[in-house]
Amino acid sequence: MALTDRVLLGPGPGNPYPEATAGLAAPLLGHLDPEFLRIMDESCDGLRTVWGTTNRRTLPLSGTGSLGMEAAFSNTVRQGDVVVVAVNGLFGKRMCEVASRYGAEVIPVEHRWGTPVDTQRVLEAHPAPAIVGAVHAETSTGVRSDIAELGAALRARGDDTLLLADCVTSIAGEPIDLDGWQVDLAYAGTQKCLGVPPGLAPFTISERAWERRVQRPPVWYLDLGLLGDYLGSGSGGGRTYHHTAPTAMVAGLHAALGRILDEGLPQVFDRHVEAGTALREGLAELGLELFAQEGHRLSQLTTVKVPDGVDSAKVRAQLLNAYNIEIGAGAGEFAATVWRIGLMGHNARLGRVAQLLGALRAILR
Amino acid sequence: MALTDRVLLGPGPGNPYPEATAGLAAPLLGHLDPEFLRIMDESCDGLRTVWGTTNRRTLPLSGTGSLGMEAAFSNTVRQGDVVVVAVNGLFGKRMCEVASRYGAEVIPVEHRWGTPVDTQRVLEAHPAPAIVGAVHAETSTGVRSDIAELGAALRARGDDTLLLADCVTSIAGEPIDLDGWQVDLAYAGTQKCLGVPPGLAPFTISERAWERRVQRPPVWYLDLGLLGDYLGSGSGGGRTYHHTAPTAMVAGLHAALGRILDEGLPQVFDRHVEAGTALREGLAELGLELFAQEGHRLSQLTTVKVPDGVDSAKVRAQLLNAYNIEIGAGAGEFAATVWRIGLMGHNARLGRVAQLLGALRAILR
Repeated sequence: MALTDRVLLGPGPGNPYPEATAGLAAPLLGHLDPEFLRIMDESCDGLRTVWGTTNRRTLPLSGTGSLGMEAAFSNTVRQGDVVVVAVNGLFGKRMCEVASRYGAEVIPVEHRWGTPVDTQRVLEAHPAPAIVGAVHAETSTGVRSDIAELGAALRARGDDTLLLADCVTSIAGEPIDLDGWQVDLAYAGTQKCLGVPPGLAPFTISERAWERRVQRPPVWYLDLGLLGDYLGSGSGGGRTYHHTAPTAMVAGLHAALGRILDEGLPQVFDRHVEAGTALREGLAELGLELFAQEGHRLSQLTTVKVPDGVDSAKVRAQLLNAYNIEIGAGAGEFAATVWRIGLMGHNARLGRVAQLLGALRAILR
Repeated sequence: MALTDRVLLGPGPGNPYPEATAGLAAPLLGHLDPEFLRIMDESCDGLRTVWGTTNRRTLPLSGTGSLGMEAAFSNTVRQGDVVVVAVNGLFGKRMCEVASRYGAEVIPVEHRWGTPVDTQRVLEAHPAPAIVGAVHAETSTGVRSDIAELGAALRARGDDTLLLADCVTSIAGEPIDLDGWQVDLAYAGTQKCLGVPPGLAPFTISERAWERRVQRPPVWYLDLGLLGDYLGSGSGGGRTYHHTAPTAMVAGLHAALGRILDEGLPQVFDRHVEAGTALREGLAELGLELFAQEGHRLSQLTTVKVPDGVDSAKVRAQLLNAYNIEIGAGAGEFAATVWRIGLMGHNARLGRVAQLLGALRAILR
């Protein structure tokens, strides 16, 4: 069977780092093999580095990014807890849905899509919520919000609200300082700037959130108390079997993190900025207008308005079929009016920008 | 960094089929790419074939096998539902724990580990439970139970109990006829006889279970109503985004299923029987005694008693370090007194048997 090799410039997955693919295909290890446990430990260390945290409990969960969101709420929400969610796109909206399933009284703070989170409005939503959730880099709109400001404001207020940050599209694509930002819980995915196929959800929880966690959470698979034992960080200290870890995926993550840290985080971040800047300039030259609010645009994910009179789906199909390039449709009500272009991880390169702009130029001509 | 290539003869993961590894490392596709949707559809078809079901809703869930158990209970258990679980090993025990977290009134029917499920005792546990759960092939003990008999007995009784079968260690390693056995819900893992690394949980649900499902289950990630939309089998009929599917893992599963069906299911099953038989004979020649009750022993997973005076952990360490062979410790209270030897999928071969027996012979001499 002939293989199809796409250039994946949508909102994720992107094309993995070659090292990640090699890691995936390396001889498989068992989930209790000392060699695998070393790879797991080093992967957790790597995640701490890209996230800027010393949280002992930092690990890749065995599912895709959304499972990380599920883990955050299922381990912390008690019936009737007030959870304030800053909603400025699809993933803030999803946070509301997931939190409410665990019995939270959710207070959504709605923002116009394409704009960043307004810290003041989030603070005013409730005087002392159990949890405040916000998305660092909204995959649905291409907007960055200021999590540092939100964290500082919450702590300044003196209550013991936990801060939860969705880092799915930001991790390993731009600077993150979870500890400095005073974030208690964060999750991510591997298929964006980490440059690994989808299948793992990096997750971290601070000591104070850990101490307040639900003791017997509803989802056994995501019970952090049990998972901690496997990681050797539980109260027992041993490595007891919980569930079989996806060892090939973890080997892929390990290899990608090694690649990223070898290149150097500042260099990786610069590469994302350089590619994102070149893309925005090129799109402007083509007469296209950006969607996300200026000053809050992600380098790794650019949202652009579909020009009047242009059929979004038709252009995407042409890109896919004639050029083998995937870009994303918009999310929610912007499905037909916005394109999402990712330059993530291994794809954050000028060569990819040139390839896409050339194809778009030819199609839109 | 030097790679470690183990011979994985524990209870899983086993060494994948080479086709699965190639599938994992093939150029990555996006989760909404028509090519990927074809691969997903064909994988679901393949799962139907190895499982003997026409269930429309048959799919690989985005997590490891235990997530399949979680999906089964989270989508079907309502507060106070009576769930009878046949417990003859670790995974029956886990079913009790998971079901109870969703509010079930669990009635465990305890069996001596190493023995199969006693249909009569399960029937007598409750006159009309909402769900009966049982493990087809207990990974912790190497025992096969008669799910066909259990299904027939439940239907003969005329109540509308749903039958849930754990097929983690049986799928693609021995004949399964879910429809003929009248099983309503089943889950599996990919890392055993399917010959794929861990990371997916094949799952299937019958029409009658689907109609009785919980409409807004607690776990958003596993909400079958929403997942059905992605698979094109939901009430909407469209392919709407739910969560990002682990596309590389699905490509690996697709390739392994292709390999298995090309070889032919009867041939694959025969290969497992041949390897398992040779292993049992060889172990007997070494003077070792089997753990699982005769007549109910799995070919794909053999449990053997650690001889008196032999240090289980020391032998396993020698196998790993000197021969690069992994076998498993026993589960639960048999951790130090039983070994578990898997000959699953690609490893169900006489060559593997010879390799292990030779090493064991040298170590135990």
